[in-house]
Amino acid sequence: MTRAALRYDTISFLSDYGLGDEFVGVVKSVVRSIAPEVAVIDVTHDIAPHDVRAGGLALARSAQYLVPGVVLAVVDPGVGGARRAVAVEVGDGTSVLVGPDNGLLAPAVAMVGGASRAVELTAEHYRLPSPGPTFAGRDVFAPSAAHLCLGADLADLGTPIPVHSLTPGMVPVSRVDGDRIYAEVLWIDRFGNLQLNLDPAEVEPLGDALRLTAGDVGRNAHRASSFSELGSSELGVLVDSYGLVVVALNRGSAALELNCREGDSITVEPGGPAPATPVHLQPKRSDETA
Amino acid sequence: MTRAALRYDTISFLSDYGLGDEFVGVVKSVVRSIAPEVAVIDVTHDIAPHDVRAGGLALARSAQYLVPGVVLAVVDPGVGGARRAVAVEVGDGTSVLVGPDNGLLAPAVAMVGGASRAVELTAEHYRLPSPGPTFAGRDVFAPSAAHLCLGADLADLGTPIPVHSLTPGMVPVSRVDGDRIYAEVLWIDRFGNLQLNLDPAEVEPLGDALRLTAGDVGRNAHRASSFSELGSSELGVLVDSYGLVVVALNRGSAALELNCREGDSITVEPGGPAPATPVHLQPKRSDETA
Amino acid sequence: MTRAALRYDTISFLSDYGLGDEFVGVVKSVVRSIAPEVAVIDVTHDIAPHDVRAGGLALARSAQYLVPGVVLAVVDPGVGGARRAVAVEVGDGTSVLVGPDNGLLAPAVAMVGGASRAVELTAEHYRLPSPGPTFAGRDVFAPSAAHLCLGADLADLGTPIPVHSLTPGMVPVSRVDGDRIYAEVLWIDRFGNLQLNLDPAEVEPLGDALRLTAGDVGRNAHRASSFSELGSSELGVLVDSYGLVVVALNRGSAALELNCREGDSITVEPGGPAPATPVHLQPKRSDETA
Repeated sequence: MTRAALRYDTISFLSDYGLGDEFVGVVKSVVRSIAPEVAVIDVTHDIAPHDVRAGGLALARSAQYLVPGVVLAVVDPGVGGARRAVAVEVGDGTSVLVGPDNGLLAPAVAMVGGASRAVELTAEHYRLPSPGPTFAGRDVFAPSAAHLCLGADLADLGTPIPVHSLTPGMVPVSRVDGDRIYAEVLWIDRFGNLQLNLDPAEVEPLGDALRLTAGDVGRNAHRASSFSELGSSELGVLVDSYGLVVVALNRGSAALELNCREGDSITVEPGGPAPATPVHLQPKRSDETA
Repeated sequence: MTRAALRYDTISFLSDYGLGDEFVGVVKSVVRSIAPEVAVIDVTHDIAPHDVRAGGLALARSAQYLVPGVVLAVVDPGVGGARRAVAVEVGDGTSVLVGPDNGLLAPAVAMVGGASRAVELTAEHYRLPSPGPTFAGRDVFAPSAAHLCLGADLADLGTPIPVHSLTPGMVPVSRVDGDRIYAEVLWIDRFGNLQLNLDPAEVEPLGDALRLTAGDVGRNAHRASSFSELGSSELGVLVDSYGLVVVALNRGSAALELNCREGDSITVEPGGPAPATPVHLQPKRSDETA
Repeated sequence: MTRAALRYDTISFLSDYGLGDEFVGVVKSVVRSIAPEVAVIDVTHDIAPHDVRAGGLALARSAQYLVPGVVLAVVDPGVGGARRAVAVEVGDGTSVLVGPDNGLLAPAVAMVGGASRAVELTAEHYRLPSPGPTFAGRDVFAPSAAHLCLGADLADLGTPIPVHSLTPGMVPVSRVDGDRIYAEVLWIDRFGNLQLNLDPAEVEPLGDALRLTAGDVGRNAHRASSFSELGSSELGVLVDSYGLVVVALNRGSAALELNCREGDSITVEPGGPAPATPVHLQPKRSDETA
């Protein structure tokens, strides 16, 4: 089989398997055994175990950059239970997403214009036999993804299901109350930057001097257009390379500075005279103006 | 050279190199320099440093799923010492395992039916020169694996050795004493599940209500056929997707719950009225029935 | 496009992106979208965030083993600031290094004989549009690397710059004072071995019995030619597989034993009668002879 004969030549693979066990390697081996000419690109496998929300957000951030083809995504706390295994076609067949129907795929599907078709992966013919209970990534999702690359139609893989029956994603919505925006930390990257669920247009009316509050920690920050505009250890509110609002500390971790985790609430409001000092247990920094 | 002309087109690569240094990348670069058409699939590189037993078990778990071809495995505490570097043919040439002769390869070799031929990797012609002492993965194992893919015969790589001279693997055997089974934790996966050295048939006679004891910690558990049968924070004894017995906590870590590490002993016996409370330092959980 | 038509068929990729986010996967997806036949080999992505020196050293250690082609290296604390994005040709076009001009590329460039040409990556035509500020790896470096593989000339990618204007690397120089050598820990590998900025010839005159001092910790060590010459828990001074001097503890971590981190100073001098016991807080080990 030459690459020209493949329907899709790339599988983009995201999971919460980590790299410490052999799960990722076994899934790739299964793919290569079935479809040796297909390339597998690892999006990431370090989604926190069972964190469907974080996996869905990482997939949505990546979606517009992935090679058209098959997306294999597995973050699956309900394995062995009632959740469906599905394949979801988008872009009229440009790509197909394969994974559990638990909301993981939904943000990426929405990002690329919605689903055109979907099936539940029920066809025994496209499953591997297992020496024990099904390991869904290895026995169901990987063979399905590989066979889609070889040319299997979505309908071959199982029972058609209505696209509106797919589990929706849970992307938190921000709330505006006067001058104050209640936002949420969508994602903390390796460098400690906090991506918020805010469009730049929502923050702009608040002005350039801002006050951020996360739990007990309050800090002043200002809007900037790049990291290099920030002084050392200065907090900035920027637009990130995905087009969303990010809180960043120049050459430091905003997550540590604000003692934040993914999913935490954060309040953004206009800055100004410092409010009463909030109670917190962190050492006061010399560059803290509050 | 086209792929059709390759003897093997895939190298499955496992090591304890980790991904923090450039070791894995350098080994792959050496392979690609010699055999550019060969695909390298990472099984895992996060075996604990020098943990030959854990590496051998991971390889054995993966073995039946790997693409036929070359397996390159390096967990090598004796590097620079007397241990031999070997290549071991299995399945009458379907695959060849390359690595140190320290027991690492043995469980996987046994899993696929035993060795048909073996050589010690002594041929200087297939080694890279080193600016210092030999880095075996880079200078011996990687070039050997790559040349096997290109068509070198096992006998070209060095001196034939009897297959019965290969170092055996050390897989612990369980012990039954009346109603009580003394088992060992073979593997703790990312999700905290404990794989034991037990076949499901060994546990079945004990009934559905079980008592597990690991060190000072005792817990009740029951046999289940899937994760979804377990209540929240309930310990189950299941068959895993490899066909072995696993102790699992629904949406939690059984390893934390039982304070276990790989290689620890664990006793399985029929449950029932709680025994005298064991002495342990962990906070008692509200769902703990003992 | 067949591989034969590619100018380069391999991109070796090093970064401080880590594998926890989708950065590496997105960069590879961008490369594959532009140049699907090109293989990307991960050198490592676990360089500590913004640690240009560590990244440069890892690249230099790897350099002689990498497949000729494109090297894509991104450790970029100054992103968004004044630092230039560059492509540097070496070996009269055998390879091209792509990355920020902050000293990251310099040690590897020096290692392979110096730069023959360089450009600043200013050509808009070879950049991806971004929904926000530029993500240099994704929007500038990855497309540049991919287009070099497809045949773009260095001059197509931007403005030529003099090779002597490239930021030099910062490799620390050792200092000899009589019998005492003041060295620095260049690198601590996964196994806790300490690579020093010393050639074996510098250490040889000191004899076989050595005294190492790092901060408050002093230890005796002796020169050895392989790990297997060291007794259990014995510190050795060896030549490593890169040809540099390394401090190693047999089946243990020299870094823990000497309480060292990368960049720390370490003094090497002839051993002998133990000096006055240094003040330190670590428990004395039974095999410690001082």
